[in-house]
Amino acid sequence: MLIAKEARSPPQSPRCISIISVPSIVYETLSVDTKNLRFESRLEVPLSWEDPDLSWNTSVYHHDMVVLPVSKIWTPELHVTNGVQTTIKHSNKDLLVHSNGTIEHMVIMNTVVGCEVNLYNYPFASDFCAIALNVWAISGCGMFLDFGNVSTTSANRGDWLTEEVELNAKGGRDDRNYLWVLLKMRSENPFLSLVLPSILIILADVGSFALPLGESKRIPFKVKLVLSFIMFLNILKDLLPGGGQCSPIIRKHFCFCLVILVLSTLQSMVLTRLAKCGTLWPCSLSKSKDSLLKDTDNEEESKSDIKASEEEKNTALQKVVKFLNKMAAQDQKNAIHHRFANKVDLICFCIYLTVLIVYAVVILYFSFGSQCKINQLDFWS
Amino acid sequence: MLIAKEARSPPQSPRCISIISVPSIVYETLSVDTKNLRFESRLEVPLSWEDPDLSWNTSVYHHDMVVLPVSKIWTPELHVTNGVQTTIKHSNKDLLVHSNGTIEHMVIMNTVVGCEVNLYNYPFASDFCAIALNVWAISGCGMFLDFGNVSTTSANRGDWLTEEVELNAKGGRDDRNYLWVLLKMRSENPFLSLVLPSILIILADVGSFALPLGESKRIPFKVKLVLSFIMFLNILKDLLPGGGQCSPIIRKHFCFCLVILVLSTLQSMVLTRLAKCGTLWPCSLSKSKDSLLKDTDNEEESKSDIKASEEEKNTALQKVVKFLNKMAAQDQKNAIHHRFANKVDLICFCIYLTVLIVYAVVILYFSFGSQCKINQLDFWS
Amino acid sequence: MLIAKEARSPPQSPRCISIISVPSIVYETLSVDTKNLRFESRLEVPLSWEDPDLSWNTSVYHHDMVVLPVSKIWTPELHVTNGVQTTIKHSNKDLLVHSNGTIEHMVIMNTVVGCEVNLYNYPFASDFCAIALNVWAISGCGMFLDFGNVSTTSANRGDWLTEEVELNAKGGRDDRNYLWVLLKMRSENPFLSLVLPSILIILADVGSFALPLGESKRIPFKVKLVLSFIMFLNILKDLLPGGGQCSPIIRKHFCFCLVILVLSTLQSMVLTRLAKCGTLWPCSLSKSKDSLLKDTDNEEESKSDIKASEEEKNTALQKVVKFLNKMAAQDQKNAIHHRFANKVDLICFCIYLTVLIVYAVVILYFSFGSQCKINQLDFWS
Amino acid sequence: MLIAKEARSPPQSPRCISIISVPSIVYETLSVDTKNLRFESRLEVPLSWEDPDLSWNTSVYHHDMVVLPVSKIWTPELHVTNGVQTTIKHSNKDLLVHSNGTIEHMVIMNTVVGCEVNLYNYPFASDFCAIALNVWAISGCGMFLDFGNVSTTSANRGDWLTEEVELNAKGGRDDRNYLWVLLKMRSENPFLSLVLPSILIILADVGSFALPLGESKRIPFKVKLVLSFIMFLNILKDLLPGGGQCSPIIRKHFCFCLVILVLSTLQSMVLTRLAKCGTLWPCSLSKSKDSLLKDTDNEEESKSDIKASEEEKNTALQKVVKFLNKMAAQDQKNAIHHRFANKVDLICFCIYLTVLIVYAVVILYFSFGSQCKINQLDFWS
Amino acid sequence: MLIAKEARSPPQSPRCISIISVPSIVYETLSVDTKNLRFESRLEVPLSWEDPDLSWNTSVYHHDMVVLPVSKIWTPELHVTNGVQTTIKHSNKDLLVHSNGTIEHMVIMNTVVGCEVNLYNYPFASDFCAIALNVWAISGCGMFLDFGNVSTTSANRGDWLTEEVELNAKGGRDDRNYLWVLLKMRSENPFLSLVLPSILIILADVGSFALPLGESKRIPFKVKLVLSFIMFLNILKDLLPGGGQCSPIIRKHFCFCLVILVLSTLQSMVLTRLAKCGTLWPCSLSKSKDSLLKDTDNEEESKSDIKASEEEKNTALQKVVKFLNKMAAQDQKNAIHHRFANKVDLICFCIYLTVLIVYAVVILYFSFGSQCKINQLDFWS
Repeated sequence: MLIAKEARSPPQSPRCISIISVPSIVYETLSVDTKNLRFESRLEVPLSWEDPDLSWNTSVYHHDMVVLPVSKIWTPELHVTNGVQTTIKHSNKDLLVHSNGTIEHMVIMNTVVGCEVNLYNYPFASDFCAIALNVWAISGCGMFLDFGNVSTTSANRGDWLTEEVELNAKGGRDDRNYLWVLLKMRSENPFLSLVLPSILIILADVGSFALPLGESKRIPFKVKLVLSFIMFLNILKDLLPGGGQCSPIIRKHFCFCLVILVLSTLQSMVLTRLAKCGTLWPCSLSKSKDSLLKDTDNEEESKSDIKASEEEKNTALQKVVKFLNKMAAQDQKNAIHHRFANKVDLICFCIYLTVLIVYAVVILYFSFGSQCKINQLDFWS
Repeated sequence: MLIAKEARSPPQSPRCISIISVPSIVYETLSVDTKNLRFESRLEVPLSWEDPDLSWNTSVYHHDMVVLPVSKIWTPELHVTNGVQTTIKHSNKDLLVHSNGTIEHMVIMNTVVGCEVNLYNYPFASDFCAIALNVWAISGCGMFLDFGNVSTTSANRGDWLTEEVELNAKGGRDDRNYLWVLLKMRSENPFLSLVLPSILIILADVGSFALPLGESKRIPFKVKLVLSFIMFLNILKDLLPGGGQCSPIIRKHFCFCLVILVLSTLQSMVLTRLAKCGTLWPCSLSKSKDSLLKDTDNEEESKSDIKASEEEKNTALQKVVKFLNKMAAQDQKNAIHHRFANKVDLICFCIYLTVLIVYAVVILYFSFGSQCKINQLDFWS
Repeated sequence: MLIAKEARSPPQSPRCISIISVPSIVYETLSVDTKNLRFESRLEVPLSWEDPDLSWNTSVYHHDMVVLPVSKIWTPELHVTNGVQTTIKHSNKDLLVHSNGTIEHMVIMNTVVGCEVNLYNYPFASDFCAIALNVWAISGCGMFLDFGNVSTTSANRGDWLTEEVELNAKGGRDDRNYLWVLLKMRSENPFLSLVLPSILIILADVGSFALPLGESKRIPFKVKLVLSFIMFLNILKDLLPGGGQCSPIIRKHFCFCLVILVLSTLQSMVLTRLAKCGTLWPCSLSKSKDSLLKDTDNEEESKSDIKASEEEKNTALQKVVKFLNKMAAQDQKNAIHHRFANKVDLICFCIYLTVLIVYAVVILYFSFGSQCKINQLDFWS
Repeated sequence: MLIAKEARSPPQSPRCISIISVPSIVYETLSVDTKNLRFESRLEVPLSWEDPDLSWNTSVYHHDMVVLPVSKIWTPELHVTNGVQTTIKHSNKDLLVHSNGTIEHMVIMNTVVGCEVNLYNYPFASDFCAIALNVWAISGCGMFLDFGNVSTTSANRGDWLTEEVELNAKGGRDDRNYLWVLLKMRSENPFLSLVLPSILIILADVGSFALPLGESKRIPFKVKLVLSFIMFLNILKDLLPGGGQCSPIIRKHFCFCLVILVLSTLQSMVLTRLAKCGTLWPCSLSKSKDSLLKDTDNEEESKSDIKASEEEKNTALQKVVKFLNKMAAQDQKNAIHHRFANKVDLICFCIYLTVLIVYAVVILYFSFGSQCKINQLDFWS
Repeated sequence: MLIAKEARSPPQSPRCISIISVPSIVYETLSVDTKNLRFESRLEVPLSWEDPDLSWNTSVYHHDMVVLPVSKIWTPELHVTNGVQTTIKHSNKDLLVHSNGTIEHMVIMNTVVGCEVNLYNYPFASDFCAIALNVWAISGCGMFLDFGNVSTTSANRGDWLTEEVELNAKGGRDDRNYLWVLLKMRSENPFLSLVLPSILIILADVGSFALPLGESKRIPFKVKLVLSFIMFLNILKDLLPGGGQCSPIIRKHFCFCLVILVLSTLQSMVLTRLAKCGTLWPCSLSKSKDSLLKDTDNEEESKSDIKASEEEKNTALQKVVKFLNKMAAQDQKNAIHHRFANKVDLICFCIYLTVLIVYAVVILYFSFGSQCKINQLDFWS
């Protein structure tokens, strides 16, 4: 008789409306893809519904419940309206049928949902995502879900914490149920590998103003820092989405750092020339130096074979003194250039520091002060 | 009776032609692969068609509509003519059959379509792509689609914006329908991680002309910039396709930057030698310097033991003067070399700057002025 | 007759409870994903159960056992309660049925289980993971497992060793069986590519204090070390999970190394300036040098044309001496600065070394002394 | 009656031989994997065959053709003999049956074929690949294919151009048909990111001979170039296969470049020492210099307190002259070393240049002159 | 009649034992994963067996052989006992049945087998791997395989060569058959990208001893080499497994190279200080220099205004001489330090060279002399 029952197990919805009871959902976030703005989750959904065709008289057939294979019985199918990819598996090949026609079953859903997570203040991101969980229903014919409570498991694992999950219905309509998942990013990893190094690099750049200007030791140092920021921007490109209304502020931060590093490199280059030549224009240094030496040369050449020995001795000594004086004058000239370049460097350093402090205040204000909001339910227009 | 109906649900097209109505399509771009020139999209396509075999007399069977399992009924299958990979899933296991034989169903298509996106001006790319959506029809037998309107969802997510989607038919033929999707790249990410660094690096290279020539501080600096451009070209290789009629101009831009950087490095190397030796040929510097010193040496050696003490004193002083003079002459010679090299450097700098400015104008003209067109419908010859 | 038997092979559990015997499990760890905290394993599970409907009278049908296709017979389905993804395959398309209704079968399970492996002392990690292996049972109706022994194969392959596998049941309940797998990481690879380089880099940084201060050779050297630690942190980001209760101590180690390297770089920069100028404030060096030279200049200029030749000779010589004295004074001043900077450098070096030794003790204490515990069975609340 | 026909639709080949007609194939190359030497292609293959069992008398059943579901009818299955992975999908769920039993169908094949593409002159690679397309046939029983023409679509997309596709049969045997696909690599990307940088780097290395020898500026520069070539070899490792009969010449090119760069680095190091010490053996420079100074020192120490004031004056002056002379001698010695090292450097440069020119000729000859041939049909022994 | 036959096609093994004949296997290695120690292969296995139920009397039914669909007939299923993942596909949808009940069929197996390839001397690795190929058999009931010969195809493609394939049976038992595959790595790629660079880098490091010590040019150079070895170790981490009994010797080689490079860097740093100060303790150089200058200063200051003009002249000259002497003494002191440091450097160089030569001998002995053996059949305990 059981076999006969099984034979007649087509899907059936007598009044074209049936109510599916979902006593409890166990939710688990599997992964969040910040690049493509999708997140994958796993739901264990027990279902329970009544199929009058599958009820029997316990006086005739002396069992309160029977176990039937799931492939022979109609089972309701859940939908994730905003899902990009959803796979539903029966948690077991069998299901339990009570004598009054109540059927108990459980499905396991793995669903990838598009969710424009708010990554405005990136390593400290935290946002709601909706999983619109519904059943098939057109033109008054179909099913309705009757939800119980929701619990989470493994909420603490992975890069994103599942802080809270609750059931909601948009506009109170019973065909617009969704799970409201509050996700919070674990900021330890990106903070330590992106934000901290960027702060330390800027700090090292500020420190590099202490290096003496003339020996141009700053330049290769600063170029390395510039290249590391370019590398950071390329790492970011693989981590964060292309833009959108709440574009992550960290990208702007890295850009600002990159530009300010290049500017400070250019400033160092220009000041190195300034310290050497006194002007930005092609170094007049060599010319002046040369003329001084030429004078000595000519003077000496003409006079050396004319003067007497006593005179000669004096002139010889005076020539030495003259030579040393000229060297000193040269040195002094250089020193004036150097002093001037050092003053300009100090001014630049002050401007640089001021810009950095103002920038730090502005970036902190923007990342924590002003919040950017995203409507996560825009798939239901 | 319902069960009996189900039993007889083979596919059926009575006059060998049937019309499938598609009231509304919901379109979503999932991803665009600029390397392999494919883009993936997701279509929610509601279908509605008439199957006279599934109609019934409502006076006999008192239901306006019944719900039947999709596996027992024939459903039409949509094709994407230019699709590389297409998966079609029923959105639900059941479908609705009206008493007049009208069937309402919905399928979800995930299709990967080859689309030669125009990446000519890469980070600002924007192009149309066609998704040729048709049904099976050979030799006058088959189906025809009757489209309604198209709407998009999540058009604003990801690296590519879906700006517009509309339905068209090539040559007005009803078996050549296609979705005309206007995609626009979000240029923020590639601009900040590729174009901006390339501009800043060239800027830093221009600035490096301010570094004094003689100390050869420019070379390691410039080599680092050269290597970073090689790295950029390797990043590009993974992002952009191999070539084609509208080869991205950014690759040519990077190549130009690389070549000009190497040339400016070579120029710096050669000028460093010029500043030291005066010629490009193996430094004659050491030889001349040596001969000068040798003279002093020989002169001194021969004379030092002959002359009288008074004479000696004078000669000794004169020797010191001579030594200093020779040093000065040496210095002067170097200064002449230096001055010459600096002049050449200034000329090179002017040439470099002119080339860069001309190049900037040319690249801007080519990227925004002349547009490259690709025929996206060439799969229909 | 065999065919007739086959025809009637629906799943059947007469008293609504059946006992599935699992004589021996062969366990193999396939991979452990430390980033997402999941591990994949493969189980060969022979099953044996009694199905009275499939028994026959050997007097009627003269075979002790028959081979039946698995698709025609009901087979029990195992569950992995904490599994993220589980695939079960029949090891063979046929199974053996004895005349008393005992059925022998074997399934192969590939299961991905979420397991928050304790990565507190990362390259030497070792932890238990649970695979909750159960069968379907609701409301008193269902199956129970009767386990035999467990053995492992290929326990020695891959990056994780399977040290021990045993069967347990939580709280002694027969529906809460789990495999208790003791995994131990092979620390050779991460130790050699992460920990060893970090120790060697810190050693090289300590050694760099031997480099003379004044020539600022330390800076580019140290910057390279800083950048390599930033690279390490980015490698770690892809290897280790975001945080959690037992956050890997190696990340803190790398952060500490990065910060101390940046601090030692800044210290070197500041001391380089100190060695040159004597103060941190913009170098007064050029000014003082300049004034000294000016004096000589003025003095000489005014006097050189007044004095007599004998006097002149002396004064000329005295001027040379004065010049040399001034140079010596300058040198001495620099030497005082240098000596002071060297003393500060020595103090910094001692502080640095002390901090490193204290840090080494602390990190060793934390990584081996205090153990962090994770409850691996929290999925059963 | 149609339904009855459908019920009896088993595969059927009456005379154990049937001819499958393939009027036209549309070929598309999807991707070429140069690392594993496989290429993926997509074939749209319309099939047409006669199944006498499916013919009907049009007088009895008044339709020229009917549409039948593909799942109820036997369809021929194509094989790719040398395919690693082949998936065949019906292009439609229905097929057309004519009254004379002719069936029209279309399948879409995605096949991954192992093809040892000739990568001998890598970025300019171009080779034939065979796709052996056959049907099942053993012991005289089976099917034979009757091919029409072949066309390609999207031949211009991706990194490999499909230049030509034609049908062939090996040895004229009708069971050894294959598609002969002429693939040509788009060399723009690998040329710009691998070959061009390697040429530019070698050019920069040649240019680095212009840098003065003594200041050892060449070394860090050359080491960077060496490291970039090591990076190139690692990039190549992921792009090209391990070896084989036509091992890519570009790998040998990179190896040669790497070795010659290391040799030129070693040469620069050795010459730097030569320029400083005159010998390769531990610098005797310091010793000689030291002894000279010692002499002065001793001489001076012993004599300074003995001589008279007049003598003293002379001797003092002479000592200054002696000191200067010794400095000059020292300088001269260094200059001799320098000159010698510069000569050796010039000789090395000439050798280097000659080697490079000879190498360039050889590599051009080998890459374009001698062609390496691979038998693409060796799977049919 | 044919259709009737088809209807009765259940699997059938009359005496509970059947022999499956495998006339010839075509073997192809698809890929070898040295990281996870798995290798994928593809087997074309023709099967032939007798099914008495499918025989017919040729006098009744006038065909020697018929073609039946594979889905209606029982086919034997092959197992790979040590397989991690095995997929078996029918090579065709139809099979051939002879009138005597002999069935001819072919299956294509893609199997991933765990094989602990001996990577002891990594880029020259070569090892046997077993593919245990068996059929289902329990308690005396089941099948046995009767193998023919084995051939390979595409043995020469990819990174691993398939040198030989033969059939064996462990302990002669007919249920323990395995394919014994001799794999040999193509060492060209890893040798050129890992071993060759490591040798060249060590060579460059040996060459760097030629760089003069005092100018500390060696340090940045050596640090770059150290960082490149750290990069190599990270590349290795992704290529090679974590450890095991035959841990690859190349990892130890790289570690040794890294440690010796760091040691030679530290030695260079310490010797740079030694060359400058004479001791390892904070430089006493500045102090001594300073005191010498102070003496001159004080002496001069006190005496300059007392002495007479004649005396003065002499003293002035003597002071110049004294100054020069002191400079010479200073120079001499430095030269002694330098000479000492150079001697220590030479000793270090000899030790370094000796260690490298000894190491090269040891590593060559270990990699080619002593062989490490792995039991590939340990899955059959």
